Amino acid sequence: MTLNILFAANETGWAEYEPHLRHWLAEAGIEAQLGPDLGPPSEIDYIVYAPSSEVQDFRPYSRLKAVLNLWAGVEDVVGNPTLQVPLARMVDNGLTEGMVEWVVGHVLRYHLDIDHALANQSGEWLPKVPPLARNRPVTVLGLGALGSACAKALAALNFPVTGWSRSAKSVAGVSCLSGPEGLEQALARAQILVLLLPLTPGTENMLNAPHIDQLPEGCCILNPGRGPLIDDTALLEALDSGHVGHATLDVFRTEPLPAEHPYWSHPRVTVTPHIASATRAETASKVIVDNIRRGEQGKPFLHVVDRQRGY
Amino acid sequence: MTLNILFAANETGWAEYEPHLRHWLAEAGIEAQLGPDLGPPSEIDYIVYAPSSEVQDFRPYSRLKAVLNLWAGVEDVVGNPTLQVPLARMVDNGLTEGMVEWVVGHVLRYHLDIDHALANQSGEWLPKVPPLARNRPVTVLGLGALGSACAKALAALNFPVTGWSRSAKSVAGVSCLSGPEGLEQALARAQILVLLLPLTPGTENMLNAPHIDQLPEGCCILNPGRGPLIDDTALLEALDSGHVGHATLDVFRTEPLPAEHPYWSHPRVTVTPHIASATRAETASKVIVDNIRRGEQGKPFLHVVDRQRGY
Ligand SMILES: NC(=O)c1ccc[n+]([C@@H]2O[C@H](COP(=O)([O-])OP(=O)(O)OC[C@H]3O[C@@H](n4cnc5c(N)ncnc54)[C@H](OP(=O)(O)O)[C@@H]3O)[C@@H](O)[C@H]2O)c1
Ligand SMILES: NC(=O)c1ccc[n+]([C@@H]2O[C@H](COP(=O)([O-])OP(=O)(O)OC[C@H]3O[C@@H](n4cnc5c(N)ncnc54)[C@H](OP(=O)(O)O)[C@@H]3O)[C@@H](O)[C@H]2O)c1
Repeated sequence: MTLNILFAANETGWAEYEPHLRHWLAEAGIEAQLGPDLGPPSEIDYIVYAPSSEVQDFRPYSRLKAVLNLWAGVEDVVGNPTLQVPLARMVDNGLTEGMVEWVVGHVLRYHLDIDHALANQSGEWLPKVPPLARNRPVTVLGLGALGSACAKALAALNFPVTGWSRSAKSVAGVSCLSGPEGLEQALARAQILVLLLPLTPGTENMLNAPHIDQLPEGCCILNPGRGPLIDDTALLEALDSGHVGHATLDVFRTEPLPAEHPYWSHPRVTVTPHIASATRAETASKVIVDNIRRGEQGKPFLHVVDRQRGY
Repeated sequence: MTLNILFAANETGWAEYEPHLRHWLAEAGIEAQLGPDLGPPSEIDYIVYAPSSEVQDFRPYSRLKAVLNLWAGVEDVVGNPTLQVPLARMVDNGLTEGMVEWVVGHVLRYHLDIDHALANQSGEWLPKVPPLARNRPVTVLGLGALGSACAKALAALNFPVTGWSRSAKSVAGVSCLSGPEGLEQALARAQILVLLLPLTPGTENMLNAPHIDQLPEGCCILNPGRGPLIDDTALLEALDSGHVGHATLDVFRTEPLPAEHPYWSHPRVTVTPHIASATRAETASKVIVDNIRRGEQGKPFLHVVDRQRGY
């Protein structure tokens, strides 16, 4: 039987993904019609999906077996009431590697005070050797696919790493905490704080004024998670007062971040345009085809989102 | 018998080192007079040494058993004809950790183009996801205590790492090359090049015009080794032409780097004031006392410099 697999993302995505998806489908011995336009919704078996796609009403897809998300974040699809089949989020080696590189790079940037070096090229020789990573505690909020990989990579560079998640976890070399009390401890020791939580009703405004107050003076913040994890007004106040030393923000409530937003011009903020990491067609296509193969073999899908929890 | 151990560095050094050296001497059960002023040279057993010290004529130290260098670099003492006893260079965990952090931090800075991000905060949202480290070849010249640790840390972050040394080596996860032919290959594949060679007659001006020509267009260079490893005129020309994309230089022929030196103002150069790493009193004191203990037990000293090779 030939499967019908709808690619519901944008055109750039399709050109990039087509060869890889076809390759892995052939490898898996799966016969499929694959493309962004495939005839009647009632004949589609799987949707390879970006939440920004035009497909927002899943009701006509009466035969649909699963929606396979191209992104790690599912906040824009998880609450869609027309979606009744399993929704798998993206867990991709390429995505994880990119995130680890971005997080470790910016943590070391803070640790070594690279901004200061770049801004001090006027001929003054003022040697100040940075402390060792072993004396620079880093906290990672969120210990999922991305957070735990970042925590491990930072620990391998000798940073004392604390991780925090909803349920209790164990990650080699990382002090793992959970729950509200755990959060208080995790924040209190963070000289550098990394946000890698998904956006859910439970995580929105996680970094609000009371939680920011619990951070040590001068703490530096990285947010490659999602914009609404941060109460922007509270963060701007803490940046103005110097309680937060610096923030590097990759994600925002509104993207693109409007040109007039105070983050762009704040001397203690670095904006990056949602580039911390991206799903890579080459590796992600295999993940998607693996999940289709599992579905066809009657096995449970991998990385299925829990609608209740929202991630 | 009580040993006489002269601390021949500067005063800051002494205040920092004294408690740690005394601690480790006590731990090792070694009775010693220790200090920067210890009476007649003829009664000194060991010198804990910085090449910048006033002690430059070792002839009066007739009883001397070894000179224990506080620095990894020995170019300013190795050729001293008055020095006839073993000279040990510094191999210190703290020094190595600091160097790994500096090198990995600046490699990731280049990899992620953090300078570009910092310079583009004017409100333009131009997303460009960086490539993965697995597609960014890095070459490390010098695979000693520092070079091999940096090469391993970079390989752990998925960078394809090539290392180059005088003698053939094997470092897990690193493509190891040696000799002149090896150098040509190592340079040709370096999108980022790290210099961690000691300064010797054989390494001076290693990075000269012909070798720079062998680097791929746009290559970025890190020099935390020693200033004279680079032919400055050749590097400045390659930076002007854009053949070399950027250089981050921690060490220089003259230090402090004079305020009028073109490196300070070059848009493609970042100067850091010899802070890539420093010997840490806490860990290094143990290394020094271990070597004294070995000497007293009649065992060969560790990390002895080969005068012929110069490192
Ligand atoms: N900027 C970018 O380029 C980019 C790229 C990809 C992804 N992202 C973002 O990164 C996020 C994380 O991705 P992931 O793949 O690591 O997600 P994941 O595997 O689902 O992990 C989520 C982690 O957050 C924890 N968590 C969720 N709700 C929580 C709560 N209320 N309190 C405490 N901890 C909570 C989870 O705890 P449990 O372990 O207990 O479940 C888990 O450890 C994505 O959701 C996306 O928003 C950004
Ligand atoms: N900027 C800073 O803050 C800072 C701090 C500490 C040290 N340093 C510098 O870092 C240097 C390296 O330190 P280390 O402890 O790693 O030294 P090391 O252990 O002596 O290693 C030196 C490495 O360079 C290789 N080498 C030497 N001469 C060579 C030649 N002619 N051709 C090819 N390879 C050659 C050696 O090859 P073999 O393995 O074949 O012997 C070895 O792999 C020091 O000498 C010092 O100048 C800088």
